[in-house]
Order: sequence, then C-alpha cells, then structure tokens
Amino acid sequence: MINTDMLRYGRTKSCIRALYEYGLRQAAVVGKENVFDYSLGNPSVPTPPEVADTIRELLKMEPLALHGYTTAAGDREAREAVAADLRRRTDDDIQADNIFFTCGAAPAIIAVCRALAVENAEVILLAPYFAEYPVYTSANGLKPVVVPADTRDFQLHADQVEPYITPNTQAVIVNSPNNPAGVVYSREALEELGQLLKRKSAELGHPIYIIADEPYRELAYDGEDAPYIPAIYPNTVICYSYSKSLSMPGERIGYICVPPCAADSADLYAAAAGAARTLGHVCAPSLMQRVIGRSTKLRPDMASYDRNRLRLYMDLTDMGYRCIKPKGAFYMLVEAPGGDSLAFSERAKAHNLLLVPADDFGCPGFVRLSTCVSYDMILRSLPAFRALMAEYKG
Amino acid sequence: MINTDMLRYGRTKSCIRALYEYGLRQAAVVGKENVFDYSLGNPSVPTPPEVADTIRELLKMEPLALHGYTTAAGDREAREAVAADLRRRTDDDIQADNIFFTCGAAPAIIAVCRALAVENAEVILLAPYFAEYPVYTSANGLKPVVVPADTRDFQLHADQVEPYITPNTQAVIVNSPNNPAGVVYSREALEELGQLLKRKSAELGHPIYIIADEPYRELAYDGEDAPYIPAIYPNTVICYSYSKSLSMPGERIGYICVPPCAADSADLYAAAAGAARTLGHVCAPSLMQRVIGRSTKLRPDMASYDRNRLRLYMDLTDMGYRCIKPKGAFYMLVEAPGGDSLAFSERAKAHNLLLVPADDFGCPGFVRLSTCVSYDMILRSLPAFRALMAEYKG
Repeated sequence: MINTDMLRYGRTKSCIRALYEYGLRQAAVVGKENVFDYSLGNPSVPTPPEVADTIRELLKMEPLALHGYTTAAGDREAREAVAADLRRRTDDDIQADNIFFTCGAAPAIIAVCRALAVENAEVILLAPYFAEYPVYTSANGLKPVVVPADTRDFQLHADQVEPYITPNTQAVIVNSPNNPAGVVYSREALEELGQLLKRKSAELGHPIYIIADEPYRELAYDGEDAPYIPAIYPNTVICYSYSKSLSMPGERIGYICVPPCAADSADLYAAAAGAARTLGHVCAPSLMQRVIGRSTKLRPDMASYDRNRLRLYMDLTDMGYRCIKPKGAFYMLVEAPGGDSLAFSERAKAHNLLLVPADDFGCPGFVRLSTCVSYDMILRSLPAFRALMAEYKG
Repeated sequence: MINTDMLRYGRTKSCIRALYEYGLRQAAVVGKENVFDYSLGNPSVPTPPEVADTIRELLKMEPLALHGYTTAAGDREAREAVAADLRRRTDDDIQADNIFFTCGAAPAIIAVCRALAVENAEVILLAPYFAEYPVYTSANGLKPVVVPADTRDFQLHADQVEPYITPNTQAVIVNSPNNPAGVVYSREALEELGQLLKRKSAELGHPIYIIADEPYRELAYDGEDAPYIPAIYPNTVICYSYSKSLSMPGERIGYICVPPCAADSADLYAAAAGAARTLGHVCAPSLMQRVIGRSTKLRPDMASYDRNRLRLYMDLTDMGYRCIKPKGAFYMLVEAPGGDSLAFSERAKAHNLLLVPADDFGCPGFVRLSTCVSYDMILRSLPAFRALMAEYKG
C-alpha cells in the first residue's frame, strides 16, 4: 500500500515546472525566441571559471581520498575554510565544528526542522515564502503557521508575527534576500523580530529559533547587505547553499551553521546531525566539499542580475504595473492587474509570457518573475508586457 | 526544545566509528603499521582512472549546463544509459522513467520506505543486516521487524521469514551480497522468498515489496552472480549506489529503480519521488550523474578484494576461528571464541586488532571484518590473530 501523502507530493507538479514545460512545448510552435520564460530560478550568471580550475587541480589528488567518505559533518579542512570565511565576515566565533555540510539548503532546513520536531511543534513561515517550505515542514513533524504577507512592502514586521506565536512555536524560517519577493529584510526589522522572539522565548520557557535560509545571502544590490542574523538574535541557525552564489545548483552543496551563541548550540548541532542521518545523509558530495573549501572567497558576478532587475522594474513600472523593487536575489513580484494572479498568468501565456502565480508562495494576487534570464529576452519581452497591460487598461 | 530521538541519533557514535577513531589514537602510540584496522567499509580498490578522465572531459561542457539543476529524477541521458545497461544485463524492460537518481543508496532506501509508510506499516529486516536500517526505517514511519540470523550459513530461509509477516508487513529489505556477512543469497533462496511473499500478498490483499539494497551487486566472487530479483519476484524495487562498485562513496550517487513489473509501478515511483522531495532531494549531484551516464560499463577491479577474502578466510580458519566464507561484498563474519563478541572485540584491541562486534548488525556472538584493506596489513596482522586465539585456547 502506498502512502497517499507521498504520492500526492510526487504527482503534484509545481506550477513553476508546469509553466516551464508549457514553455518548451510552446517554443516548438512559435519559436524559442518568442517565448519569454520567467518561470525558473536557475542562475544565468556562468559558474566562475575558478570552479573548473579547482576541480582539475583536485583531480591530481589520490582518487580514493578525493572521492572517499568524509565524516558526516564533512572534510575538516573544507569546514575550517568555511568557518574562517564566516569569522572574517561576521566577527562571530564560528569554528569547523559549527559547520555541517549538506546536499544543499533543502536537506539542511529539513534536518534543523526535524531536530526541533517535538510533539505538536509549530514553525512560522513568513509570506511570501519559498513554495517548498510547507512540504519540508509538514512532512517532517512540524505544523507550518503562516504569517500573511504585508503586500505594501513585503517587509518583515514583528508586530504582525506576534499573534501567530503559540506555546508550540519552535522556530521562524527567515529567508532574506527573499524568494519570491526579492526584498532584503532590514536590520531594524530583524532587530524587532529578535526582541519579540527573545521576549516570547522567556515567556514560554524555551528558545524560539530563527532558521535563516540564506542561499541568496551574497545577492544583494544597491550596496545593501543582508545582516548577519546571529549577531542580532543569537538563537539562529543558518542554512546555506552554494547553488546561487556559485551558479552550481545541481551539485547539491551547502551547510548548516549552528553558531556557538545559539541556545544549546552543541545539542542542536548534534540533533541536526542525527536528523540528517534519518534523512539518509552520509556526507555531502566529497569532491564539491573540497571545491568549496578552496572557493570561499569567490563571489557571484551580479552585474547582469542587477541590470535585469532594474530594466524590468523600471519598464514594467512605466507601463503601469505595480512592482516590488527587488533589493536582492533574482526575483520580482508584480501585482496582477485585476487582482487574480491565476487569470493574469493565463492571459500572459497568450502573449507567451510565462509568469508564475505567487499563490504557492503564500502570496495570491501577485506573480513572480525570475530575473535570472538573458537581457535580450527581457528586451524582446517588453512589447508583450505592454500588450498585456493594454488588455487590462482597454 | 530539541527532539530527543534526533539528539540520540546524533550523539550515538556507531561502534564502527568509535573503533576507527580508537585506531587513529592508538596509531599515534604504537605506530600506524602496528594497528590492524578492520573496522571501516571504505573501498580500497582505486577509483577507476576513467572517472577522472570523464570528469575532465565533462568540464569542457557549458558550466551552467554541467552544474545546473537536473529534473528531480535526473538527467535523462544519464538515466537512459543506466536503463540501457540494466536492460542489457537483465532482459527486463527498464526505461529511463523507471530510474530515479539519488544521493546514494541510503536516501533511496528511505524514500522507498516513506513511500510505503502507511499507518502501522512494518518492514522486515533479515539479520544480519546493515546497522543503519533500524534508524532508516523507524525514523521514517515503518516499524522494523527482525528475522534472526541463521548462524549456520547466514543464508536467507523463507520458512524462517514467514512467522514475522503480519497484516502490516509492507516490505522486506534484502541486501545481497550482504553487509556484514558477505554471503550472496542463492537463487533458490530468493525463489522461496518470492513464493512466500506472493502467497502472503494474496492472503493480505496488498503487495509486500522487496526493497533490494544492492550496493555490492557487482562484488561477487567464485563466478557467483547476485540474481536479478525482479525476474524472480516482480514486486521488487532496487536501491543502488556506485559507492562500492566505482570506489567513490563520498560522491553520493545512486538510484532507485522501480521496474515496470512491480505492482503499481508508476504510483510507487511517483510516491518515492514525492518522499524524496520531503527528504530535501532536489536532484542528485549533477556532475556525478553525467559521470555515471558515461561509466555504466565500468566494473570494479575485484582481484585484490578476492585475494584479501581468501587469505583471511583460509588463515583464520586454520588458526581455529569459525569464519563464514564470503562470496561477495568485502566483509567477513568471524564467530567470537567464547561467544561474547563485545569481550572478544575488547581482547582483540589489546593486540591492536580492530574487529567490529556484529551486535548492531543484529548478529551478536560474531565480529565483522572489513576486508577492503591492504594485503600487507593482513599479512602483518596474522601473528596478532594467532596470539589472540592462543589466549582462548590456552
């Protein structure tokens, strides 16, 4: 007999992938250059050439050492390099033993969730949120509790979070720079959240952790910086991935960092490691661990992402769309004229514009544009956006 | 608050790793060459040089394509290559859509377990079994039910399995060639199991699946072949890993194969994919998927494993140890003289012999030797085995 939840998780195609596949079919009909696909969050900036150089260099190692098991936490030298980079950037006392390499951010988040999955545990999701969070949490012993989006600015507002905290609240997932909104939570907003969580933790008698999902940490524009959250609120666990910052999302390499300042830091680290074990984690891919160990200083080339976001934001705004100006990541939310994001996405398809309704991101009434596309495609797509708006105005 | 099960899974050091770490400390005292470490199942045959050549070749690909996301199931071309190899070897009609790449066998087994985790589900483990199975199953919604080992031959005996089947039995995990016993289940034994499961499935009104955990499939000696189980019992799902066959255990690449002959094949595949999603699977490491796609014809060089197993089996038997002659994998069980495996392992340590008590493998009274070691170490260790036996005889 088959578990019906798992079957549903396997059968339900995300609307992102459904749109993407529609685009492939449509390209065969109208030509690839006439389909404007803003669906997938696949990095478009090339992987830094240093990655290939490093792999070639590593291939000179003794292959059994290169491709062999590491400890579950990962190669010590590589973890030390990651820790040293974090120390340098944050002034926090991160050591190799605070770092646990994972197969990307997804299993990192799930391991931390499972580590906190006591009876009746709840985790707060701040809309708009990454569309997989409800699966990651509810299938791993935590009930997701959604704080609705503030559609004025899509910022984090602690006073709007407070009513959703209950005695069962174990954690809040904070994703900044944010997918899908592209906002970067301000230091002030994070400080207010920290104060709230500190007060509530004291009231409840147990720490409420922040799970900081930070694959876009390095992708912030206009000189904006994503604040280092543990310095603001110590009970924070970082889940990181190199997917976006090094444009290698297929390689599945990231880490959990439980900083020493977090409550029960050593126990939480051990429980996350134990949870990873229950997920089938043996170690993160060993070659890529070593690539990361030698690449901690590499940063993404953001010039093209920056140009894309500004071009889209400016031109769509000029056309009359209400857009949320992105300060980070490579996504932008656009309000659906008429208010119905599903209907808007459908009408956009008639113009070969593939825009993802943000409903699955907890944000109905908006569509998400992935701006990690070619600049040429953006330019070619502008007349379609204009024609689409004309339908609503006309 | 921290989940105490996860904390325990994280804190409990496996006795294998504890012994291995003891060996490292002891090497600092008595010299590396005087410690005889039979603890870890780390391949000792070099990774085939073709792997490095293939990686160098793949690095010429466009990097975003090479390191980018694949679909959750994996790169189609690589899956097609795996399917073609299975078709060629088994005559079964395996297609790319029956293959789902995973980060090794562990998450493959867990995904299949979760796909079958209906209420009160039970899974049968055949002792001796891989020591992580109880964690993989009990932490993912299935109650493990252990069939004790037949210590005469460590073979599979269907009549001994029958009493453990209940209305809640969803699957039997079959691991052949076997870790820790090194036995290969005979075709006859598998046929009897198949007949039993067929009869019981009909009685219960739902299929009982075999989960075939086959990382050692290619490692069989004396011309023995591990039978292709779906041809014997159709309701079989294969969980495979390239860790051992290509000596790259750190790279975390393997697959689930749900053959078309399995009951509800498409649903089970979809549910395993859905379960993988709940484990944080996005795709298997993309570079390694493509390495596998070009390496399906590579086979391990087994000459040194074969020589190791025969040397150890013959010499230890001559000394008076009762050993189970391994026909596959790279492990051997040795009966603890006196019957107490923990005491025997402790006494062996005094001779700097690191032998893992098989208690965690569901096989008390025996120790496991990993025979994937250097031949020189085996020769150097023989006097220690002799001295150890003298203590028991003396």
